[in-house]
Amino acid sequence: MSASTSLLDKKQMESEGIGLLHYVEDRHGGVIVNMEKPMDSKVFSSLLNDSLSHWREQGKKGVWIKLPLGLSSLVDVVVKAGFRYHHAEPDYLMLVHWIPNIADTLPANASHRVGIGAFVTNSNREVLVVQECNGIFKGTGVWKMPTGTVNEGEDISTAAIREVKEETGIETEFVEVLAFRQSHQSFFQKSDLFFVCMLQPCSFNIEMQPSEIEAAQWMPIKDYADQPFMRDNELFDFVAKICFSKLDGNYSGLKPLPSTTSSGKKTFLYFNHDASHLLT
Amino acid sequence: MSASTSLLDKKQMESEGIGLLHYVEDRHGGVIVNMEKPMDSKVFSSLLNDSLSHWREQGKKGVWIKLPLGLSSLVDVVVKAGFRYHHAEPDYLMLVHWIPNIADTLPANASHRVGIGAFVTNSNREVLVVQECNGIFKGTGVWKMPTGTVNEGEDISTAAIREVKEETGIETEFVEVLAFRQSHQSFFQKSDLFFVCMLQPCSFNIEMQPSEIEAAQWMPIKDYADQPFMRDNELFDFVAKICFSKLDGNYSGLKPLPSTTSSGKKTFLYFNHDASHLLT
Repeated sequence: MSASTSLLDKKQMESEGIGLLHYVEDRHGGVIVNMEKPMDSKVFSSLLNDSLSHWREQGKKGVWIKLPLGLSSLVDVVVKAGFRYHHAEPDYLMLVHWIPNIADTLPANASHRVGIGAFVTNSNREVLVVQECNGIFKGTGVWKMPTGTVNEGEDISTAAIREVKEETGIETEFVEVLAFRQSHQSFFQKSDLFFVCMLQPCSFNIEMQPSEIEAAQWMPIKDYADQPFMRDNELFDFVAKICFSKLDGNYSGLKPLPSTTSSGKKTFLYFNHDASHLLT
Repeated sequence: MSASTSLLDKKQMESEGIGLLHYVEDRHGGVIVNMEKPMDSKVFSSLLNDSLSHWREQGKKGVWIKLPLGLSSLVDVVVKAGFRYHHAEPDYLMLVHWIPNIADTLPANASHRVGIGAFVTNSNREVLVVQECNGIFKGTGVWKMPTGTVNEGEDISTAAIREVKEETGIETEFVEVLAFRQSHQSFFQKSDLFFVCMLQPCSFNIEMQPSEIEAAQWMPIKDYADQPFMRDNELFDFVAKICFSKLDGNYSGLKPLPSTTSSGKKTFLYFNHDASHLLT
């Protein structure tokens, strides 16, 4: 915007979106700027300031700016214009600024990582166990159930099936969540939800993944439970008891029910299937 | 590091940590740099490059750099040195670089936000409900159970008690998680876990929070369930049935048990309390 541009011209240009950053409106009275192409930081700074004035006049609330990793040279400009960080992923940084003079109603950042442990048994009362190449159990000789991280956008049930397949080659069907654990400060300030899941095997021939897994086997459940690391840890010991209780038909966890949210998204509701008569 | 510094001097300085960024070692063979004070970006760039050479020679793996919001001018330097974003919070950005020539074992970013809904009833078979000032139900006249977001580092049970107290002034004790829902793309790419919790009221006099809540009341459970928005949504209808089933003693969810992880952290394990005899 050159200094010679008259106020009227500027207004006209703005009403046509000229001289402003390209943006889309969100459903909460805010706007989203998705920067995709490089821009000189001085030009960007000027456009950003003009855009902010425009959005302020329009009564906009939250302003989101998404900067890909390649445009890291613009981060400082956005922060200097009054924005704060909201969240980041490997390839982008999201910044946000709340315009109104009232407390913001911006959504919180993701706070939890989600993991699964998979309890899989065959008809010989043997449990599927692995020894890991990495992590705290590396080199300890400990046999543990397959575990892994639920990816962003992935269902807990899908993640459990995927991890068992990746680590051991065993195909499974998801049965239910037996229990879950919430812990904090699991990495930096983030919290952790870990779901102990029961799965039913559909195949039995182990083909392990050498990059993550040192060894895998079907192990008698008594030998699994009798390992010192299980007996000495109250939590592990209790979770094993829950699993075995389930195996004997004396426990009910929460089973997934495919469902749809009010906004039409596919979702799973996990509930105690003893109550499935309520569905009819 | 001036050009006149000899290689020997440089090695000596590095072995004493002079001419390097201040860092601490993590438990996974990596290092963490927590930048707290401003630094000229050219000086920072030179120190970072020397530090990276040093860490490479030492066989370090992941290098983490934490930059507070006020040092946004250094973000570009770190990215240009080969780092990517890992995560961000309002007041800082965490960048990471993996040195070895093998696939990285860096922890994933947090992927889920966690929310709660609180089912609270009194002895007259009335349920505690609110009308919200914001959100999709604003101005619809819909009465819903108190809901809210679980903060980073906060227990699900604590969050449920806190939200009920904040929105309605009612003191409660946590009973159990009745069911939970996992959904995706709830905001940008992030996923969502929503826990339906039952709580027992310890007080009954409603004092609502005017900034978030338009109205709050004890409502006969039949009137609550008969609202069109409940009857017309399969998921809401089913969750209400689960809640009422629990009220009648015909449902078991997952109850929290205070516990300790193998690394000594306090945690809660949520399990079906019908199996509490397993604890003895």
